[in-house]
Amino acid sequence: MAAVAWIAVDWGTTHVRVWLMSADGQVIEARSGDRGMGALAQDGYELALLALISDVLGHGPVPVIICGMAGAKQGWAEAPYASVPCAPPDVSSAKRVPTQDARVQVYILSGVSQRNPADVMRGEETQIKGLIATQPDFDGVACLPGTHTKWAHLSAGEIVSFQTFMTGELFALLSLQSVLRHSVATEGWDDAAFATAVDDAMGRPQTIAAKLFGLRANALLGGLEGAEARARLSGLLIGIELAASRPYWLGQQVALIGAAASADPYETALTAQGVPVLRMDPTDMTLAGLRAAYSKLDQI
Amino acid sequence: MAAVAWIAVDWGTTHVRVWLMSADGQVIEARSGDRGMGALAQDGYELALLALISDVLGHGPVPVIICGMAGAKQGWAEAPYASVPCAPPDVSSAKRVPTQDARVQVYILSGVSQRNPADVMRGEETQIKGLIATQPDFDGVACLPGTHTKWAHLSAGEIVSFQTFMTGELFALLSLQSVLRHSVATEGWDDAAFATAVDDAMGRPQTIAAKLFGLRANALLGGLEGAEARARLSGLLIGIELAASRPYWLGQQVALIGAAASADPYETALTAQGVPVLRMDPTDMTLAGLRAAYSKLDQI
Repeated sequence: MAAVAWIAVDWGTTHVRVWLMSADGQVIEARSGDRGMGALAQDGYELALLALISDVLGHGPVPVIICGMAGAKQGWAEAPYASVPCAPPDVSSAKRVPTQDARVQVYILSGVSQRNPADVMRGEETQIKGLIATQPDFDGVACLPGTHTKWAHLSAGEIVSFQTFMTGELFALLSLQSVLRHSVATEGWDDAAFATAVDDAMGRPQTIAAKLFGLRANALLGGLEGAEARARLSGLLIGIELAASRPYWLGQQVALIGAAASADPYETALTAQGVPVLRMDPTDMTLAGLRAAYSKLDQI
Repeated sequence: MAAVAWIAVDWGTTHVRVWLMSADGQVIEARSGDRGMGALAQDGYELALLALISDVLGHGPVPVIICGMAGAKQGWAEAPYASVPCAPPDVSSAKRVPTQDARVQVYILSGVSQRNPADVMRGEETQIKGLIATQPDFDGVACLPGTHTKWAHLSAGEIVSFQTFMTGELFALLSLQSVLRHSVATEGWDDAAFATAVDDAMGRPQTIAAKLFGLRANALLGGLEGAEARARLSGLLIGIELAASRPYWLGQQVALIGAAASADPYETALTAQGVPVLRMDPTDMTLAGLRAAYSKLDQI
């Protein structure tokens, strides 16, 4: 194994991912665990980290660069938000966290906040940093679909403004825990139903709460199939998001950073609106962002 | 105790309520249990009913008039929907359910459905029947706030059209199970926050998914209090409902049938829009509706 020069970490709510990095920025090995923020008390983070990496630590201290929820108030140590407009944070503004084990030097990257309208992100700013690092000429909008989808205006290497939508969480709650769970399948899809629902919701977004119950009623009365209901539910929720995020995507190029399951429907819907979409792999962007953040270490 | 001439039953998803009725339509006694549709298999209904009433049964058969989810496909016996436009169903179209115990004659009232847009109700139609029975001159719109809020156009004793909104269920899911549970109190209220949120949502309904996350961000960044967040969440959801239900309430008198906790915010929001509101007690309406449905028994 090549020598581990530093360690990149994405510490989310439910999972933690670790990459052992060489001096020239290559991934030596990727590792992961399920001890996310939700499963850890403040004093549990160091041991959880060491459990993933202690076998590769030598005598000298190794920098560990962390993005994500580990920097939240309920995380390992609070890394205060940077405020827009700003470049996605690097180690120069990171929270330096003391550890009992001297073999690690832990830095937690700041999230980004916006005053008005109030908004926050933790983790996505590092993916955006990766986008800026790998596409330095990109000037436009980033969309990061997920539990809490983020839209961000980027310009000259900075996040200018951003907005979060609870679309992914609404989809999960409605499809798994509401009365719609009887009508919405857990898999399967219908392209036409999705497209129609996006158009419906964009055209008359205020009808969303009625359209949602309509899925149930159509299943009871009209035999709406579960896979079609699933695509329609997704289309309704993405449709109202696109109606509200129009100032972000209209006339713009959109870099779409997300796993296939969440990003594919966004690509379909945006393409139907004539928006040019640049798909970027979310893990690649996280890693590129952590690499860019780490690159400033010799300046502090 | 006066003689029990018939028995009125409201059999919902989570509870069952029973009223022992005299020949002149007075309530002799009210009883209730927690064996709703969700807790019963088809063959469990008769015993669950008898457990509540067997002590008052004599030799002759007693009519039992049931409204609500007992008539659903997953209930005691399916009572097919009546289609709008129609008067709220009475016993003449009820499902007569055979019982092993000859001391009861069970009738389950039909729900009401609508073909386009597809919609269904089970239980609310009987409250509407109660409204029509007690306010025979009422011509306007009924609003029944709840888990699945119903709006219904009434004319000449019939339900002309109706629409269901998942507002109550969305409020419960978002306030108790989403990321907002960290920011939204389980009680408390703020009138001004509610009013502002209703206006925001009615004016720009498409922004709902962003406004929802805004509650979380404002709690993190701006110290938004839990009670204010609760009122704002309610206002946002009722606001988008009022934006979509405008064709129902605009220029109309609205009979509002619901428990205080769910109906009070609707009254506040509708009154702010200049809509005259007639408050009706939901239990009184259920009972009046069952009484009106029972009154047709001698005609079958």
